[in-house]
Amino acid sequence: MQVEDLDTPVLIVDLDALEENVARYRRYFEGHRIAFRPHIKTHKTLALAHRQMAEGAIGITCQKLGEVEVMVAGGLRTDTLVPYNLVGRQKLDRLTALARQTRMTVAADSEYTVRGLSEAAHAGGVSIGVLVELDAVGGRTGVSPQRAVELGRLIDALPGLELRGVMGFPTPPKTRPLFQEALDLFDRAGLPHPVVSGGSTKCAFQAHEVPEFTEYRAGEYLVGGAGHMWGGTHTVAQCALRVITTVVSRPAEGRAILDGGSKSLSATFREGSMGHLVEYPDARFYGASEEHGHVDVSACAQKPEIGERVQVIPVHPCPCVNEHDELVAVRKGRVEAVWPIYARGKVR
Amino acid sequence: MQVEDLDTPVLIVDLDALEENVARYRRYFEGHRIAFRPHIKTHKTLALAHRQMAEGAIGITCQKLGEVEVMVAGGLRTDTLVPYNLVGRQKLDRLTALARQTRMTVAADSEYTVRGLSEAAHAGGVSIGVLVELDAVGGRTGVSPQRAVELGRLIDALPGLELRGVMGFPTPPKTRPLFQEALDLFDRAGLPHPVVSGGSTKCAFQAHEVPEFTEYRAGEYLVGGAGHMWGGTHTVAQCALRVITTVVSRPAEGRAILDGGSKSLSATFREGSMGHLVEYPDARFYGASEEHGHVDVSACAQKPEIGERVQVIPVHPCPCVNEHDELVAVRKGRVEAVWPIYARGKVR
Repeated sequence: MQVEDLDTPVLIVDLDALEENVARYRRYFEGHRIAFRPHIKTHKTLALAHRQMAEGAIGITCQKLGEVEVMVAGGLRTDTLVPYNLVGRQKLDRLTALARQTRMTVAADSEYTVRGLSEAAHAGGVSIGVLVELDAVGGRTGVSPQRAVELGRLIDALPGLELRGVMGFPTPPKTRPLFQEALDLFDRAGLPHPVVSGGSTKCAFQAHEVPEFTEYRAGEYLVGGAGHMWGGTHTVAQCALRVITTVVSRPAEGRAILDGGSKSLSATFREGSMGHLVEYPDARFYGASEEHGHVDVSACAQKPEIGERVQVIPVHPCPCVNEHDELVAVRKGRVEAVWPIYARGKVR
Repeated sequence: MQVEDLDTPVLIVDLDALEENVARYRRYFEGHRIAFRPHIKTHKTLALAHRQMAEGAIGITCQKLGEVEVMVAGGLRTDTLVPYNLVGRQKLDRLTALARQTRMTVAADSEYTVRGLSEAAHAGGVSIGVLVELDAVGGRTGVSPQRAVELGRLIDALPGLELRGVMGFPTPPKTRPLFQEALDLFDRAGLPHPVVSGGSTKCAFQAHEVPEFTEYRAGEYLVGGAGHMWGGTHTVAQCALRVITTVVSRPAEGRAILDGGSKSLSATFREGSMGHLVEYPDARFYGASEEHGHVDVSACAQKPEIGERVQVIPVHPCPCVNEHDELVAVRKGRVEAVWPIYARGKVR
């Protein structure tokens, strides 16, 4: 089957581009002797997680336990990191069940989380690895180096837990002093930190500027995205993930309506755009309703016509993938595989 | 099972609130003798579509053929409107297959769409109803009254099609002159228009101000949403759809992180917010990553603690529902049903 035979909107991944991304990030991380732990939340797909493991990954990162459950059931009993505060009886039960099947490490940024983890691990008779989350650039989760060492002491003292080090997200080079300070405090307290984990595709190629990193997490590196294209890490050709759409209306001279809206691309909006039109680089994808993509084509010398197919590179691949049940793998215009996105919708 | 037993994040609908919405919109539309055709894209759920039909709807509205297929397979062989330009061989094949099973009406705003519909209907030996889409308030799809009558003539002349009238979206009272002009032109051309269809929950209670409407489409009326709460059509109690989340981190005095981010609520952002926190009305849900909801709790006299559960009313229910596989129906804190969201993810 050819890509032209697929009805739209349809989510595709170009395998040549994907393999080039795998190779160039592998070269970088191996060259700098930083272990690589891909984040599967970008693709949520067993086929790609297995491929990442075969390409030198030391394990995987998942953001939700539901993703880990899919991966384990799909044959990926590997070293798994969930960089998230797992809270509540149900999740802790599932975590200990998983820890019986595969090596689990989680993140924590509060005493509440740490005590819950310890009680569950102790009661379940398992050992859970814990990384203390540092507040890397502010604005989300994580603690200061001072607070991190307090949590580290607690983790080290409590039953069922193994203190494995520290992590942060995102971790541009400017976060190095923070990691240095935390590690120094850990050393002075006699606390172990075999793992120092950085993350984010955006600053992946600067990971070596924080030589403390023992490992690195990235997900979007695999497929790019319009945000990464604008940021300079991926060319248009290296943006492997696309939503193929059809122009369904041309209600005004300067406006084209695509059959892919927020339900195909996600409602993510960045830098005034919901995606980059490959065939019409001068078009501006300025908005969407659920099933309509709204594109300003005034600046395009030639304008798309109704019935024409247009490839859109989403601004953020992870939520875009989460809208779909299947990912169509394409090489040189031919369909090679249709992968179920088994880990989509795993909100818990 | 009680609602407290559900792990988070979880999508729930409060049945008392939902039934109150059904009743008050039914009273309004019956009182004004406007036929009601609910849009199932909001809930994407068979149980609720059947309930809407039992509560006096004349048929349903679906935005994608995949939604119609789910409804028909689920026992809803009813008068069905798809207010969308259906373009391309695959969709037209599916449309004619559906038209053999149930009465189908679609919208069109171009000669391209109309000719495609006619060829498919004629070849398939079926009759497809067509409404011409008027450009109601500008900005999405639809045509002018002058262009509408040209398309009306074409639809009326082509085989396989039945001209059924006109539609628009959204249709606040200020769109009345547009409908009047189009209908006047239709009358002068001797074209039929048994259906004049308005739509949008936002202006549903003003539908009677456009007395030309024979029927009306709304979806979100059923469950509200933070946008409708701010707009005044739904009280907090009438916002039936909620995502129950757990506070997983309190990294700063003024910040709470919920375990529901864009993957549970959708990435939709309105008036600087991603949702309304029921228990903390002074909180500001200012951002999210996929699995983290970022809430400013500085203005809250009492602040949420880690492990606490918080109900979020999403700003836009339709994309929020599309993130989930199941909708948990709750009454007075007890789980009455867990409905599969069979029509979620039907991007085609």
